[in-house]
Amino acid sequence: MDECKVIIMGFGSVGQGVANALSMKKDLIKDKTGVSVKVVAAADSSSSAISQDGLDEELLVKTKKEEGKLAAYPEFGSDKSGLDVLDAVEYDCLIEATPTNIVDAQPALSLTLKAFEQGKDVVTSNKGHLALKFKEIVGAAEEAGVEFKYEASVGGSMPIINFTRDTLASCEIKSIKGILNGTTNYILSRMTSEGSDYEVILKESQELGIAETDPTQDVEGIDAACKTVILANSLLGIDATYSDVKVEGISNINSQAIELAKKDDYLIKLIAEVSPENLQVSPRLIKRGSSYDVSGTLNMATIKTDLADEVSVIGLGAGSLETASAMLTDLISILKNKN
Amino acid sequence: MDECKVIIMGFGSVGQGVANALSMKKDLIKDKTGVSVKVVAAADSSSSAISQDGLDEELLVKTKKEEGKLAAYPEFGSDKSGLDVLDAVEYDCLIEATPTNIVDAQPALSLTLKAFEQGKDVVTSNKGHLALKFKEIVGAAEEAGVEFKYEASVGGSMPIINFTRDTLASCEIKSIKGILNGTTNYILSRMTSEGSDYEVILKESQELGIAETDPTQDVEGIDAACKTVILANSLLGIDATYSDVKVEGISNINSQAIELAKKDDYLIKLIAEVSPENLQVSPRLIKRGSSYDVSGTLNMATIKTDLADEVSVIGLGAGSLETASAMLTDLISILKNKN
Repeated sequence: MDECKVIIMGFGSVGQGVANALSMKKDLIKDKTGVSVKVVAAADSSSSAISQDGLDEELLVKTKKEEGKLAAYPEFGSDKSGLDVLDAVEYDCLIEATPTNIVDAQPALSLTLKAFEQGKDVVTSNKGHLALKFKEIVGAAEEAGVEFKYEASVGGSMPIINFTRDTLASCEIKSIKGILNGTTNYILSRMTSEGSDYEVILKESQELGIAETDPTQDVEGIDAACKTVILANSLLGIDATYSDVKVEGISNINSQAIELAKKDDYLIKLIAEVSPENLQVSPRLIKRGSSYDVSGTLNMATIKTDLADEVSVIGLGAGSLETASAMLTDLISILKNKN
Repeated sequence: MDECKVIIMGFGSVGQGVANALSMKKDLIKDKTGVSVKVVAAADSSSSAISQDGLDEELLVKTKKEEGKLAAYPEFGSDKSGLDVLDAVEYDCLIEATPTNIVDAQPALSLTLKAFEQGKDVVTSNKGHLALKFKEIVGAAEEAGVEFKYEASVGGSMPIINFTRDTLASCEIKSIKGILNGTTNYILSRMTSEGSDYEVILKESQELGIAETDPTQDVEGIDAACKTVILANSLLGIDATYSDVKVEGISNINSQAIELAKKDDYLIKLIAEVSPENLQVSPRLIKRGSSYDVSGTLNMATIKTDLADEVSVIGLGAGSLETASAMLTDLISILKNKN
């Protein structure tokens, strides 16, 4: 394989990050894999840009930012969107970065299954379809004989899936425990350092763009619960779905509780636990100075193994380029396996 | 490849750990790679056990522990040692776990180069030859067209080399900064928590087996400096050798300095820095609660990248099974590439 033609589906923060990262890293990918990557289509929720000869990544981002729609891309703008784009151009790999949907997993589910049917590899940052139908999707990829990688779905630029599979390959994974949501970690960290109330910090986090206008997914633990399901299935071989996770968010944590914990040198963190006995996301007391004591929007995870004891990893849980870096690492891994 | 015949060279703590780990993990390796691993020889500093039909890993460890020499292995004990073992049996991969020698890199250097000449892959936990002659050894492996893996040489069970290469494959590595020696971290942690003097804690650490009888390699920063060179060469492409590292140990740190730091919420840690501008191991002030605030015998490293910002990893820096787990992961990676 000399050339890999990719479609970037979803062109919000992550999709734009992929375009930017690709434009920075074409030479590196070529050096590491011998393969040239070409973007043949990019699509937002209602339009796209499509060209079999390849699109300019920077112009894609510029068009989206300035015009609001990829349909405005010079010469190759199109009204096609969603599944139609997968039929409109020849491609090798779908880079799927549509928003997570925890109700019916769409459009990620249909896009992914269609790509598999077409015999194409898929790299995703999406959590919804994995949290609802992990086994079905991974099974469909195996049946189709294609590669399916989803490092970016958990932990942004904090490597956890490939990390555990590849660099801890000799170990049995007993459990994973960690902080898998950056927004709630930011809110709790600020409540702790400033002594302020939840509502005050949430509002400021929204103003800073760290929390979303509707913060439910983050503050109620839904996002972390999706990631818990993905880790349970992919790393511990537990056949679980979203409804198997006990979930409690942080919206009931008040400054009094945090102050009380501080007096005994504890912090309150939203901890996800993944083990054969327990799939749970809940606020927990953790000791100051322990490995769970990471602040701001950082994510962390401690992987308990048989041979290597405990290994922890810490990284930024979100961010456009950061999440894109995980998707590019997945793409590089796929391309290395081809050659 | 259906079967991989290995020689375990060096049968101290790490070599025995490899034997124990192999006996636990044969099925896992077979599942992941399709290859059966067979130990055809194991050697300590003056004797060995050799059998083309395979040796029993648990009996190897029992013999060494109870009789002191592998020559006492039933039926297959031998007076052969060192290079002669590599000629005495047919093998595919050398698992090299002899003690680090920072003066002339022997016997690791000769063993490794001879294995390469014989067209064999090598997995090592040794730091000496890599710290003194990294480029020469890696060059020889490339020339011979064999695989050479050395994850266990840095950080014990804390994955850093494969971690950075594989799971951060899309990123440019700007620098690495961390705690690469568990013994000194243990001594400094206890000095901090107890307010005791260096000599007192060192003596207790020796009694606990955490510090060696001659603690020079650890406390003078030599061990961390070797690891600094290995990371510089392997992950940042810096052509450096041991003498390029500025090294200062912890033997001059007294309890007054630690108390003074504590007053301002700082800790003293032995920090290794790996960047194109600076290769250095030295005691540094680090902020309490920062990612460098890990205690006991833990190692940690923060990898600064272009796309993923900073990613950190924490794990046990030493231990028999822990170090063996890294060597087995390297072996699995080699076997996967064969099939």
